[in-house]
Amino acid sequence: MTSWVPRLLPRNVRSLAASSENQRVEDGRRHQEAYGYFLPIQTRWQDNDQYGHVNNAVYYSYFDTIINHYLIRYCGLKTGLRTSPTVGFMVTNQCTFHTPVGFPQIPVAALAVDKVGRSSVHYRLALFPPKPAGDLPAVEHRDFSDGFFFGHPRLAQFAALACTTGSAVHVFVNPATGKPTGLPEDFRPGLLRLVTQLPRNHSQTP
Amino acid sequence: MTSWVPRLLPRNVRSLAASSENQRVEDGRRHQEAYGYFLPIQTRWQDNDQYGHVNNAVYYSYFDTIINHYLIRYCGLKTGLRTSPTVGFMVTNQCTFHTPVGFPQIPVAALAVDKVGRSSVHYRLALFPPKPAGDLPAVEHRDFSDGFFFGHPRLAQFAALACTTGSAVHVFVNPATGKPTGLPEDFRPGLLRLVTQLPRNHSQTP
Amino acid sequence: MTSWVPRLLPRNVRSLAASSENQRVEDGRRHQEAYGYFLPIQTRWQDNDQYGHVNNAVYYSYFDTIINHYLIRYCGLKTGLRTSPTVGFMVTNQCTFHTPVGFPQIPVAALAVDKVGRSSVHYRLALFPPKPAGDLPAVEHRDFSDGFFFGHPRLAQFAALACTTGSAVHVFVNPATGKPTGLPEDFRPGLLRLVTQLPRNHSQTP
Amino acid sequence: MTSWVPRLLPRNVRSLAASSENQRVEDGRRHQEAYGYFLPIQTRWQDNDQYGHVNNAVYYSYFDTIINHYLIRYCGLKTGLRTSPTVGFMVTNQCTFHTPVGFPQIPVAALAVDKVGRSSVHYRLALFPPKPAGDLPAVEHRDFSDGFFFGHPRLAQFAALACTTGSAVHVFVNPATGKPTGLPEDFRPGLLRLVTQLPRNHSQTP
Repeated sequence: MTSWVPRLLPRNVRSLAASSENQRVEDGRRHQEAYGYFLPIQTRWQDNDQYGHVNNAVYYSYFDTIINHYLIRYCGLKTGLRTSPTVGFMVTNQCTFHTPVGFPQIPVAALAVDKVGRSSVHYRLALFPPKPAGDLPAVEHRDFSDGFFFGHPRLAQFAALACTTGSAVHVFVNPATGKPTGLPEDFRPGLLRLVTQLPRNHSQTP
Repeated sequence: MTSWVPRLLPRNVRSLAASSENQRVEDGRRHQEAYGYFLPIQTRWQDNDQYGHVNNAVYYSYFDTIINHYLIRYCGLKTGLRTSPTVGFMVTNQCTFHTPVGFPQIPVAALAVDKVGRSSVHYRLALFPPKPAGDLPAVEHRDFSDGFFFGHPRLAQFAALACTTGSAVHVFVNPATGKPTGLPEDFRPGLLRLVTQLPRNHSQTP
Repeated sequence: MTSWVPRLLPRNVRSLAASSENQRVEDGRRHQEAYGYFLPIQTRWQDNDQYGHVNNAVYYSYFDTIINHYLIRYCGLKTGLRTSPTVGFMVTNQCTFHTPVGFPQIPVAALAVDKVGRSSVHYRLALFPPKPAGDLPAVEHRDFSDGFFFGHPRLAQFAALACTTGSAVHVFVNPATGKPTGLPEDFRPGLLRLVTQLPRNHSQTP
Repeated sequence: MTSWVPRLLPRNVRSLAASSENQRVEDGRRHQEAYGYFLPIQTRWQDNDQYGHVNNAVYYSYFDTIINHYLIRYCGLKTGLRTSPTVGFMVTNQCTFHTPVGFPQIPVAALAVDKVGRSSVHYRLALFPPKPAGDLPAVEHRDFSDGFFFGHPRLAQFAALACTTGSAVHVFVNPATGKPTGLPEDFRPGLLRLVTQLPRNHSQTP
């Protein structure tokens, strides 16, 4: 199934969809080199809705999962409410759905950081489906526990073009006061590692 | 808990969040008169995540529910894959989270139509929490099965300012071919009934 | 769609299914008078799985919701991890699915208490679909915020036979130690109010 | 956190919980050799509820996933409603929760077949947590796409005792008529491969 977005939507919607000024940017967001960190996603039977594809709300739980997985594994986030001095609350997020995926496919989620503020982080997100020839790609040793970074040979098993792109903004809050708090200093190296530029000059052909 | 969005985010993010050119528009989207149709939402224990508030992905299932409920109840949508000549696939959606809600609160979801295209519909969405004095507002006869329209006295039980705003675009597709198809003619009256203008000149004070 | 359970399953499975020694008990569990408290359930688009009915796992979130709603509304449960001296953890639960329901139906969940222990509560659960003539029953003033008790005229709008029955056991635990703790005394009156006997001598005809 | 079930519950509940006649059987169900097929489960941020552990309803979606994954991968199940001559509907399921798991742990789900009927299959299910020393076990090549069978060295990375046990019964139905239908013949070899005996004479010490 090909993408409806470029064919169907007027410019202002594509722009809305991509939360960016033009189609070229959205094109850039659909390529693997726009992302630094990757985590395969195990779909579930329950993810598919009545139309046989992953329900749109479920993609947000995939993206929540890659973000929190990275923060816990590489930035030292503690998620226990009773013990954590700071928790990340989502203030805005957005997805554009180019083509569907469905259980039992194993796509790979992708994460980059657009900006690190005093108490907020802006994420760029995407989901890449497995290559058509193999719905069930080989996921290697530690892929699900550690994820992997751009350049890893594993990426060759996933499509070059994202089926879904997204973005999200976390604000870090003191759970005792509910007020924004500065990012813990030990978060910054892990987050800055994922600050990448959007690729340019991609032709749009998948 | 007050909204982080206006205090925290730079202009381009507020704009991203609101998928609109300026803060005034987002302010307009937070008022009840920007919406035509309302459906109370029963939160579930499972909706709350580890931080004690409704998880961001769950809001998208609330908005999916009000959209599909309206299409089934007021536009004649048939959702059976085996019987339906057309099904709505989400191509993009977006939320901005101003303040949290949580189980067992009963907020009200709000729906308007921004644009009706040949095979697409652009929705404007919001969630209004119950007024602080009564976490559990009285929901009247048939509120959950029929919803209600702007002007209904029930709206007085919900806060004047939305805790969450959003938008979404459906493309209607023939499930046999996967290709976009013109909207069924009998959908249009129900959808056009919800085409409303964004209110202007609101002061930002809740 | 009629129930498969009595027709299909060997005796030991019906027994497994009903977690009780015989079919007569399961029959009793399918009637409204086996329950004391009722809460309408708003289904969601996402609840339906690929086969067009509510996914089996989702019923458990309905039952979680009626239990926690009752404990909060009528027994004084506080659910904040940072503030609550005791939280309920599920140790076992079970469902038997006689006939399916699906979005946008509004069934009613039903709750009784089988036994109140020192730190545990055994619940009996059921879901009654709306009567076939009206898929969308009128849900009255405060139905969703307060629920209602056996004998309420609202029950006439729901089928006499449950589409799903279940059971569950909560153990109350001190969240700081993870160890079972005595039920708070102020929980007992609300729980004892729902201790009901299973009805007997029902003919099995729906 | 140790299991509450043996310490807390009266015999009839343990029996209910285990859907079996005695504690020895439940003990047997908690060991890896009671199962034939294993699939690691990627937990999600959203799986954790307000108490910081995977919500009870979510375990049922894990078990749904291993069952459907096995049926698709090893028995030839087609899940498309428009194309499939037979679909599996759940008629009863049950879980006992001995100890909790939580995101971002990667437990392994386990599946055995208790009985293959004319149109029904009775499953035995469990979830084994990663060993305490390593919350994030190394998951090997193809673990998530193919799973693995009893005897695989990977199992050494997971605890010897299940944190959750369960059971489930599928009835296979013709989606056009809603009536039970004989199991497709090509399902039987895959299902019979998982028919295992419960181990006996286990001491109860973890």
